[in-house]
Amino acid sequence: MTLLRQAVAELVGTAFLVTAVVGSGIAAQRLSPDDTGLQLLENSIATGAVLVALILAFQPVSASFNPVVTAVEAALGRVSVPTAGVLVVAQVVGGAVGAVVANLMFELDAVSVSTHDRGGSGQLLGEVVATLGLVLVVFGSLRSARVETVAFAVGGYIAAAYWFTSSTSFANPAVTLARTLSDTFAGIAPSSVPLFVLMQLVGGVLALALLRLLHPQPQEAP
Amino acid sequence: MTLLRQAVAELVGTAFLVTAVVGSGIAAQRLSPDDTGLQLLENSIATGAVLVALILAFQPVSASFNPVVTAVEAALGRVSVPTAGVLVVAQVVGGAVGAVVANLMFELDAVSVSTHDRGGSGQLLGEVVATLGLVLVVFGSLRSARVETVAFAVGGYIAAAYWFTSSTSFANPAVTLARTLSDTFAGIAPSSVPLFVLMQLVGGVLALALLRLLHPQPQEAP
Amino acid sequence: MTLLRQAVAELVGTAFLVTAVVGSGIAAQRLSPDDTGLQLLENSIATGAVLVALILAFQPVSASFNPVVTAVEAALGRVSVPTAGVLVVAQVVGGAVGAVVANLMFELDAVSVSTHDRGGSGQLLGEVVATLGLVLVVFGSLRSARVETVAFAVGGYIAAAYWFTSSTSFANPAVTLARTLSDTFAGIAPSSVPLFVLMQLVGGVLALALLRLLHPQPQEAP
Amino acid sequence: MTLLRQAVAELVGTAFLVTAVVGSGIAAQRLSPDDTGLQLLENSIATGAVLVALILAFQPVSASFNPVVTAVEAALGRVSVPTAGVLVVAQVVGGAVGAVVANLMFELDAVSVSTHDRGGSGQLLGEVVATLGLVLVVFGSLRSARVETVAFAVGGYIAAAYWFTSSTSFANPAVTLARTLSDTFAGIAPSSVPLFVLMQLVGGVLALALLRLLHPQPQEAP
Repeated sequence: MTLLRQAVAELVGTAFLVTAVVGSGIAAQRLSPDDTGLQLLENSIATGAVLVALILAFQPVSASFNPVVTAVEAALGRVSVPTAGVLVVAQVVGGAVGAVVANLMFELDAVSVSTHDRGGSGQLLGEVVATLGLVLVVFGSLRSARVETVAFAVGGYIAAAYWFTSSTSFANPAVTLARTLSDTFAGIAPSSVPLFVLMQLVGGVLALALLRLLHPQPQEAP
Repeated sequence: MTLLRQAVAELVGTAFLVTAVVGSGIAAQRLSPDDTGLQLLENSIATGAVLVALILAFQPVSASFNPVVTAVEAALGRVSVPTAGVLVVAQVVGGAVGAVVANLMFELDAVSVSTHDRGGSGQLLGEVVATLGLVLVVFGSLRSARVETVAFAVGGYIAAAYWFTSSTSFANPAVTLARTLSDTFAGIAPSSVPLFVLMQLVGGVLALALLRLLHPQPQEAP
Repeated sequence: MTLLRQAVAELVGTAFLVTAVVGSGIAAQRLSPDDTGLQLLENSIATGAVLVALILAFQPVSASFNPVVTAVEAALGRVSVPTAGVLVVAQVVGGAVGAVVANLMFELDAVSVSTHDRGGSGQLLGEVVATLGLVLVVFGSLRSARVETVAFAVGGYIAAAYWFTSSTSFANPAVTLARTLSDTFAGIAPSSVPLFVLMQLVGGVLALALLRLLHPQPQEAP
Repeated sequence: MTLLRQAVAELVGTAFLVTAVVGSGIAAQRLSPDDTGLQLLENSIATGAVLVALILAFQPVSASFNPVVTAVEAALGRVSVPTAGVLVVAQVVGGAVGAVVANLMFELDAVSVSTHDRGGSGQLLGEVVATLGLVLVVFGSLRSARVETVAFAVGGYIAAAYWFTSSTSFANPAVTLARTLSDTFAGIAPSSVPLFVLMQLVGGVLALALLRLLHPQPQEAP
C-alpha cells in the first residue's frame, strides 16, 4: 500500500512536471514569438518554480520524478531495487500523461511526435554536466538534515541549468521520453533520445562516485 | 472573536491578492504594451511573489484566500462547515474590494466590467488541471509538518501555472469573480465565470480524491 | 553599545537597500533603454532579491530599514521611543549614503536632485496601500515565530508591489528621501516627497489598527 | 581526509558556479542578441538560482567558493590558515575547470582569453561595494543560527548586485580569474584582473571591520 502511494506520487508529480515544462514552452512560444531568449527565460522560471512546489508537496510521500535520481537512491541503499523499478515505471507513465495534458490544454493533438533534433558534442557534454550537478544537488541537500531545502536547491539548479548547459538541461530520462510527445518548444525528436539518456546515466554514475567521496558515511533515509 | 479575526484575515489577504493580480496586470499592459509574453512574465512574477508574502503574513490567523481550498479543508474536517461558509464570504467580498482598489490606484473607474471572454475546451481543461494541482500542492505541503513551506509551494506553483495552463490559472472562484470587475489585462467577462468556477470545483473534487489516496491518515490541523 | 550596533546595522542596511534600488534603476535604464516594462522588471527583481539578503543578514542585530516599520515597533512596545528615534536617524543617513554610492559607482555626480515629479490621487492611494500591506506583512510574518520568514515575505511583497501599486511602492520615508538625491530611474522630486511620506504614515496607522484586531495579544519581541 | 573532502567540495562547487556564470552568459548572448538588458537579467537570475542550489548542496562539507570569504573565515578563526590556503587553491582550480567546461558545452575553444577590458573608477568602487556587501551578507546570515539561510541570502544578493553595482559584481577573485578564460559575455581581460581583485580585497577588509563591530562575540563555527 505504501508502494502504491509512492508510485502514485511519482506518477502525478512527474506528470505535473512535464505539463509545466511542455505547457510553459508552448505558452512562451505563442506569447513571445520573436524572442527565443525571452522564451527560455519564461520556460526556465516556470520550470524552477513548479519544481519548488511539487517537491515540497510530494516529498512526504515520494518526490524524485527522475529515474536517475531513483537509481542513485537504489545504489545508495535508500530504496530497494524492486521499489526503484516500480517508481521509474510510474515516472515514465506520468511523464507521458503530462505531455498529453499539456497538448490538450493548448488545443493541440493529444500526441504529436517532436521533430526537434538535439545533439552534437556540446549538448551531449551538457547533459552529462546537467545530470551530474542535479544529482550532487539533490543528495548534497538531503545531507543537510533539513529535507525541505531540496525543493529550493533543485528548483534553483534547474532554472539555472536551462541557461548554463547548452542542451537546456533535460537531465531526466522520464522527462526526456515524455518530451518526444509534443512537437513544440520543449520537444525532442525520438532519434535524439538514446544519446541524451546515455549521457544522463553517465552523469549519474559520475555523481555517485563524487557523492561517495564527499559523504563517506552511509546515506540515511531522510 | 476568533472567527471574526479569521474572516478579516481572509478578506484583507484576498483583497491584496486580487489587487496584486489586477494591478500588476494593468502595469504590465501599460509598461510593456507590445509584448504579451513580457506582460505575462511580469504578472506571473508579481503574483507568485505576493502569494509568498501574504501566506507567510496571514497564516498565523487564516490564509486560504480561495473557496476551493476552504471547501477542501471543510471536507477534510479541518474547519467546520459554518466557519468555511463565513470564510468564503469574506474571500468573495475581499476579492471585490481588491479589484476596486487596483482600479482606483491606476485612476480607472472603480468598477469596469470585463469584456474579456475566456473559455474553450483547452482553457476549461486548464482550470481543472490548475485547481487540481493547487489543492495537491497546498495540502501536500501542509503534510510536511513545516507549515511555512506552503507559502513557497503556492507562490511557485501559481507563478508557473500562469504559464503552463492555457487559461493562465485562475484556479480560485473568489478571484475569478473579482476579476470580472476590471476591464483590463487580468479581467474575465461575467459570462465566462460559471464554467470557469465549475471546472475549478471539478479540479477540487479530483484533488480531494487523490489526497485521500496519498494521505490516508486523517489530516490534522497545522 | 547595543544601540550603537543597532544603529550601524540600520545605517548600513538602509544604505545597501537604497544603493540597490537606485543602482539597479540606473543599470536598467542604460541596458534596456527602450523598454520601460523590462526596466521595472529588472529593478523589481533586484530590489526584492536584495531585501531577502539584507534582512537575513542584519536581522540578528536590527533590520527594519524603514521609519514606518520602526514607528510601528515603537507603538507596539517592541522598542522604546528614544531607541526608535535613533534608528530612524540612522535609516535616513544610511539612505542618503546609499544614493551617493550608487551615483558614484555609475560615474554620475555624487548628488543630482531628482526632477521626477510623482503624485496624483492614484499614486497617493498607491502609497497608502503599499505601506499598509508592507506593515501587515512584516508583523504578520513575525507572528509566525519563525523570524527568518520575514525576509522572504518582505522581498516577495516589495518585488510584487513595484508592479501592483501605481506609485511603484516607495512605502518607506527614509528611502523616499534618499531617492531625491539621484536624477535617474528611481528618483523622486523633493516637492513630491511630503505627500508621499504623509500617505505612507496613513498606511502605517491603518496597518497598526488592523494588526491590533488580527493579533490582540501583545506582540512579543522576536 | 576531511580536508580533502572540503577541497573537493570547494573545487566542484566553484567549477559549477563558474560554469553557470559563463555558460548562462553565452546562452544569453546567443538567444537575446539585441538586448543587453535582457542578457543581464537572464545571467543574473541563473547565477542567483545556482548559488542557492550549490550552497545548500555543498554546505554540509564546504561551500565558500570564494577566496575573500575563506580569508575572512581564517581571520575570524573559523578555519586555520593552512586549511584556508588549500581551499583557495581548490577554488582557483575549480573556477578554471568551470570556465573550460562552459566553453566546451557551447562548442567554443576550451580556452579563449577574454578581451573584455573592465575598469574605471566607477567599476572599481563597484567591486569594493559588491564584496563588502557579500561578506556582510554571508557572515551576518551565519549569525542567525540557521545556517541554510546563507544560501538564499547569497543567491539574492548576487542576483541583485549584478544590477546595482556598475561592475556587475564579480566580488570573487577565483571567479574573476576564471572569467579570463572565456572571451564571451562574462569574460574579463587579464589586464583588468589585478585592480578588480585588489578592490575585492579592500571590500573584504572593510567588511571584516564592520563585522567585528556588529558581532563583537567571537564567531562560532556553524
